[in-house]
Parts: sequence; structure tokens; C-alpha cells
Amino acid sequence: MTANVLDHSLRTIATQLADGSLRARDLIEAALAHHDPALNAYVSWAPDMARRQAAAADAAFSAGTCLGKLQGIPISFKDLYGVAGLPTFAGSPRALPEAWTAEGPLVAAVRRQLGVIVGKTHTVEFAFGGLGTSEHHPVPWNPRDRQNHRAPGGSSSGAGVSVAEGTALVAFGTDTGGSVRIPASMTGTVGLKTTLGKWSVQGIVPLSPSFDTPGILTRTADDAAFAFEHLGGDKVPDLPEGTSLRIGVAERFFWEGTDPGIAERVTEAMRLLEAAGATLTEQTLPGCAEVYEIYHQGGIVSAELYAFLSGHLPDWLETLDPRVRQRMDDGRDLPAWTYLHRKSRYAALAAEAAAVLEGYDAIISPTVPITPPPVAKLANADTYARLNLANVRNTCVVSFLGLCAVTIPAGFDAAGLPVGLQLIGAPGREAQLLAIARTIEVLLAKADIWSPHA
Amino acid sequence: MTANVLDHSLRTIATQLADGSLRARDLIEAALAHHDPALNAYVSWAPDMARRQAAAADAAFSAGTCLGKLQGIPISFKDLYGVAGLPTFAGSPRALPEAWTAEGPLVAAVRRQLGVIVGKTHTVEFAFGGLGTSEHHPVPWNPRDRQNHRAPGGSSSGAGVSVAEGTALVAFGTDTGGSVRIPASMTGTVGLKTTLGKWSVQGIVPLSPSFDTPGILTRTADDAAFAFEHLGGDKVPDLPEGTSLRIGVAERFFWEGTDPGIAERVTEAMRLLEAAGATLTEQTLPGCAEVYEIYHQGGIVSAELYAFLSGHLPDWLETLDPRVRQRMDDGRDLPAWTYLHRKSRYAALAAEAAAVLEGYDAIISPTVPITPPPVAKLANADTYARLNLANVRNTCVVSFLGLCAVTIPAGFDAAGLPVGLQLIGAPGREAQLLAIARTIEVLLAKADIWSPHA
Repeated sequence: MTANVLDHSLRTIATQLADGSLRARDLIEAALAHHDPALNAYVSWAPDMARRQAAAADAAFSAGTCLGKLQGIPISFKDLYGVAGLPTFAGSPRALPEAWTAEGPLVAAVRRQLGVIVGKTHTVEFAFGGLGTSEHHPVPWNPRDRQNHRAPGGSSSGAGVSVAEGTALVAFGTDTGGSVRIPASMTGTVGLKTTLGKWSVQGIVPLSPSFDTPGILTRTADDAAFAFEHLGGDKVPDLPEGTSLRIGVAERFFWEGTDPGIAERVTEAMRLLEAAGATLTEQTLPGCAEVYEIYHQGGIVSAELYAFLSGHLPDWLETLDPRVRQRMDDGRDLPAWTYLHRKSRYAALAAEAAAVLEGYDAIISPTVPITPPPVAKLANADTYARLNLANVRNTCVVSFLGLCAVTIPAGFDAAGLPVGLQLIGAPGREAQLLAIARTIEVLLAKADIWSPHA
Repeated sequence: MTANVLDHSLRTIATQLADGSLRARDLIEAALAHHDPALNAYVSWAPDMARRQAAAADAAFSAGTCLGKLQGIPISFKDLYGVAGLPTFAGSPRALPEAWTAEGPLVAAVRRQLGVIVGKTHTVEFAFGGLGTSEHHPVPWNPRDRQNHRAPGGSSSGAGVSVAEGTALVAFGTDTGGSVRIPASMTGTVGLKTTLGKWSVQGIVPLSPSFDTPGILTRTADDAAFAFEHLGGDKVPDLPEGTSLRIGVAERFFWEGTDPGIAERVTEAMRLLEAAGATLTEQTLPGCAEVYEIYHQGGIVSAELYAFLSGHLPDWLETLDPRVRQRMDDGRDLPAWTYLHRKSRYAALAAEAAAVLEGYDAIISPTVPITPPPVAKLANADTYARLNLANVRNTCVVSFLGLCAVTIPAGFDAAGLPVGLQLIGAPGREAQLLAIARTIEVLLAKADIWSPHA
């Protein structure tokens, strides 16, 4: 056992654990050793609890019992998930009532396999913000720039950091308008945004029941595929090299105003895919402009968040982060009939988008249009509002259209920060997107553009 | 063939049609002969279309083809259902756009079996009202009082009349807060309110997507059971006499302020059931008082109706029946977050109610607390508002709690008008309720209290 055990894929690590060539206690020590408190990934860091879980995993392996492929694997949860024994802050200044520590189906799936929970990662308060900021807790440090404190992306602000630093091989986040994909893109990790309803949100503090989806962040597309399959997802197919993929190139909307290097990296990756046999066609995603316009008008998320907080956590309204408060207040007084008009437009446009996606294996766009901004810049409320809006553009429209998506790193932008490439798929096509992501990952590594384990 | 062909059960008629002892053309003539234009059941009366469909049914029978048990059976649809070739007014003064004549799955199920559509029955405008009134169309005459023009019940105001007069053996209505059960109760017919989602509302003009359910009215519980089964419902079991049914007696809420004779008839029927072996226990339906209180505060139906009309039929807002307008305006400016609070309370209370119902085969209450009022009395807006509120009490709470229900006639009240007995069941238990309804129907006939074919 050496510290470079973490250089292997999740698939290899799981095999080593199962065949006894790696012990969970050694794996967890290697992971814990990567913890950098200065990066502030975790609101609840639980190394002792993790060691006890690793010991349990080893004991089961010794008894010849393997309860699942995640047995012994270090895993983090965003602090919206109820996890027994750890408080749930949901980014707020104090722990929510005990009921919010009850574990839902995803935590249960990890427990059932004797996965090793290392702690709970920071989140923007009640997940309402895409940059990763907080007034109540330290803002996690984007590990891709050790000199300047740059935004880690949000709202799953600690999740990407936990994977990037190496304390978790799988980080659970949630994605309403980009909250898994944005931190993944900004930290150079892979993020899976599942289709609404694919995975249960039970046991997770809600932001918007209309759009909330659980998701995972991992180091590589292959890790994501492996975790997805073993969390009850569909089998991810192996695509033969040179497979004739039908790829749509997202319309202009997704490329406008991207910071230097972002469009370039995504375009390069598409060229590699084309050279490998894929067919690329420009394709408009109908409804993008309209759902983004509804978002500008306030959308429905603010009203849903206010309904939840006023109904379940009224005391938490008083201490809301001013940025969260502002965004919520802007939309909270929406009339029910306007809310219903918007829901009905979302549904109609989602049906159109799904129909278009049927003609493609995926549509590709940049994940986040901007380079991770310095956290200091976000102190100004106007700058924050402007950047948050730009930041979520490419991800939120995908959410509002009811689609699923994967983001993978495609290299570095002009500022030297990671660029995310977004694969957009029809509802329920997570496995297909992960397969394509894995193909692109291999092409990027061969071209020396991005090496996942570097 | 004699005119008394209609004295037989639907089951017998279907058998006679299938074995050739009855021809659909004779059956339809018998039904058409019962049409009483003075009762005003229909907004679109289509005898010639019906004759052509009956001829087609006969032609198929002659060719040895039976496409379903409803082949050749006279059927009416509430004028919210799209039916090709007939306009859809939805109770409004002019026909809705052509798209609203598109046929949904229930009409398609009737067509597929070569059922005979005799016309479209009157409805309260956009189904928003429980007494059956209209400013735009004649108010159907309750056939149970030939001297005074009494309310036929609503919103499926013509449906019960079509069955009671004999022009339809099955009348399709919709029930949001009682719109199938109330007209059934008031006209001495049987009404089935299905569980939300059991039958598709596609092709039906909506009132409230949160609560709208299609349903049927028939002469007897056995007819309803037969039609339900052959519309894709579950098999209705035959209950042996003296079967040990577990019956809940609805709480005081359902009995307060009932007009003379109503509580008495329902109680008598329960005594007959008890004598036949059923166990009766008083049972509170948790949440009744709370959902009725939410209803008093305006509920969510007004906002949903306004969202629909303003989004799809804005021109129809201008000509709304003043009573419908008043009810809609009272609730239309509900904030989205209050709407969501209410939805969330409904869901929580529905889960509690479903759990209670698991301990019973049915809970029994009076269907409508009041005797059908004279239509003239309803000209006064305050009287209308007061009576409509009292009228829907026992049915709307069942809808808001997500349950299903059947109403059957249990005799006559002190004013000589029919009394409805409501059987309330857990979600999805329509077949069980219909089986119990059939048992009660037999007991009432034996006791000479109500003879369905009298």
C-alpha cells in the first residue's frame, strides 16, 4: 500500500478492496491524509467516524461479505442530505431540527454497501446561489488556484473541493439550476446532473421541488459511470472507438460572452470527437431563450423556497444570507396563476426539447461561461448578481427543460482554470451521456489536454 | 322488442345485444324516445349521429364482431369532453377552439367499443359550481320533481338528468369537488368519483388539474360496476351476502345541518348493512375539518381555473357567468407560496386519510347535505353562495383528501327528493366501493326503500 492508491480508478480500487490487495483502513488513511483544512471543503469533517466505517468494511471483506461495489469507498455528502450522527445546517448558521438528519434513499444506498462517509460538504445557504458564497461559513477555496481565493462554484461548494483534494472519491451534491455541474466545472471534476425523479430527493433539504435533482461529482467520467451503475443506475455502455455518435453543437446562446479559452477548449474537444468518427451538427434547443427569460423574470424557485422556509423553518428566515434573501424576496410574491403559467410553459418546452434530443446522442456546450471569479470580487452585490446570472446560464436552461447532463473537464481557460464541457441528454439518458463522457475523456488524455489522474 | 328494454340492467342489455336478441337500433330508439326536451339535459343532442352509430354497432354484431361490452350502448358525455363532430362549450356562451373537440382516452375507449354517443350534456360554466346553474344555457330540470324546477346538481348538471330520463345508460361527468356525486345524488342515480389519476383527463376542459377526475353516472350500482370494468377498471368482486364488511361511520362533520330525512335514510341503509353482517364503527377522517377550512379560505381551484383561462382562453374571461366569475376572483390572487403550502397540506392530510381508510372497506356518509333547492331561490347571490357551500361540503373534502367515492340513492328525504349515500374509499379502491354499493342496493330493494328500475 502506498499513498498513490488514489491514483487508480474507482473501478480498480473497488476491485483491489474486493480481492484483498487493498484494505479499506489504508484507503481511508490515504484519503484523510489529503484533507487540507485551508480549502474548507467540509462543514462537518468526521475522520473518526470514517475510520470506524472503514474498519467495518474491512471486517465484512474479511468475512467474505461484499455488500456492494462502494464498500470501503470514501464518500462525501453535501450538507443538505440527512446523515445520521452529523448535523444538517443546509448552509445556515445553525443546525436544522433533528428530523432533517433522517437518511433518504441515496444515503441508505451508500450505508447498505458499507461505503465510508467522511463528512458533509459546504453548501450555499439552502442551495440558492451558483458561485459557492456564504455569509455564515467559510467559502471553500477553489483548489485549482492556490494563490488567489477563487469561487469553488455552487451551490455544492464543498463537493468539488472534496473530490479535487482527494478526501472523497464520490461526492454527492444536488443540482437545481447547475449546483452539481458548476462546482464540478470550476474544480476540474466530473459532475452528473440526473433527470428529475431519477433519484429520490427524500431526506434532502429542498430548494425547488420542481427542479431539485441529486447528483454526483467524481474525478473522472469512468468513476462517475462506475458510481452511477452501483447506485442503481442503468448500465453504462462501452462505446467502441470511432463509434458513429450523433452530436449536436449547442446554439449560439451557450457560447456568447464566454471568458477567453472556454469556447476554444470545448471546440477542440468536439474536433477530437469528430476526428474519432462522430457526426457534429449545429442544433437549436428550442425553449432555451424562453426558459432563460422566465428565469430573468424570477422563475418559480424563489416562491418554492419561500413556501418551504415559511412552512417548515420560519425561524431561519430571520438569519438568511443577504444574497439568498435578496434572490428569494425578488420572486416570492409571485401569484399562483403566474406560477402555474410558468410550470405549464416549462412542461410544454421540456416536451419539445426531449423530442429534439431524441435525434442526438448528446448536445455539447460549455458548462460554465465564466472563469471562477475571485471571491473578493463577489463582495459587491451588483457584481455578485451579474456574475451569478452569467454563471448559471448554460446549466439552468438544461434543468428547466427537464433534461439530464454531465460535465467533464476539457482543459484550461486563458486564466489557467478548468473548463467544463457539458453533455446534454434526453430525460433518462444518463448512462449514454456517461459513456460519451468517458470516450471524450480518453481522447483528451491521448491528446495530452487533460489527464484525469495528473 | 318492447319499450321496456330499458328496464333491464346494463349487463343484461349488453348480453342481449351480443346474442342478437336485441338490436342496437331498437335500443337507441327506445332511449331516444325517452328524451324530454323540457328537462334540458343536453346542450348538443345528436339523435341522427346516435342512429348511425347504432347501425354501425348492429353491422358489427351481424358480422360476428364484438369490440367491447359497451358496443351499442347509449352514452352521454358532459360538455367538457372533446367529442369529434360536436362543439365543446364547457358551459360558456360560445364554442371553444377546435382543439377542444379532440377526443381523449375515455371517449376513445367508448368509440373503440362502438358505444353510441347520444349527445353532450349541460355543465356549469367551466365546471365551477355544484348546483347546476348557468347564465348562458337553460338549467336542466331535476326530473325527480316535475312540479317545481329544482337544481339538478352540478357541475355535471345534464349528466344525471340524461341517465334519469333514460336517454343514456352511462353518462360521463367530471368530479373536482363533487361534480359527479352531487348531480347523481340529486337525481337519484349512481355516481362514481374515481381516484385522481385513475382515468386520464386528457381531452377534457380542465377546472383544477390538482383535483379533476373523470367519473360516470348510471341508473344502478351494478350498471356502474359493469361500465367501470369495461372501461379498463378493475374487476368488481361479488360480495357474498352477510359478508363481514368493515364499515366506518363518518364523523359528525358530515351529518351536521342535513335537511330533514337525509341523515335518516343513510342511517337506515347502514342498519340494513349491519343486519346483513357488516361491522359499523364511528371513524373520524383526519383532515376533513382542515381541508374544508382551506376551502373556506379560497382553496386552490380558483387560481388553477384563472391560470387556465388567462393562459388558454382569455376571451372567455369577459363573458364568465357572474357566479363563476365571483368564485374565481375570490381566490385568483393567491400567492404562489400559499398555493404551495396548501398543496403540501393536502398531500400530508391525504396520506393520513389513506392510512385510516386501510382499516375499512368503506366509510359511509350522506352525499349531499341539502335537498335540491328550487332554481328560483338561487337567483339571489347570497343564497346561492350559502347553498353552494353547504351543498359541496361532504363531497369536496373527499376530493381534497385524494380518495375515491361512490354515491347511491338510499331513498327519499322529507321533501320527497332522492337522498344519496356516499361510500368513501382508499385511493384506487373503486372496485371495492362498487361491490359494496351493489350489496346496499340489493338490501334497499329487498326492504322496498329504493328500487333502481322502478
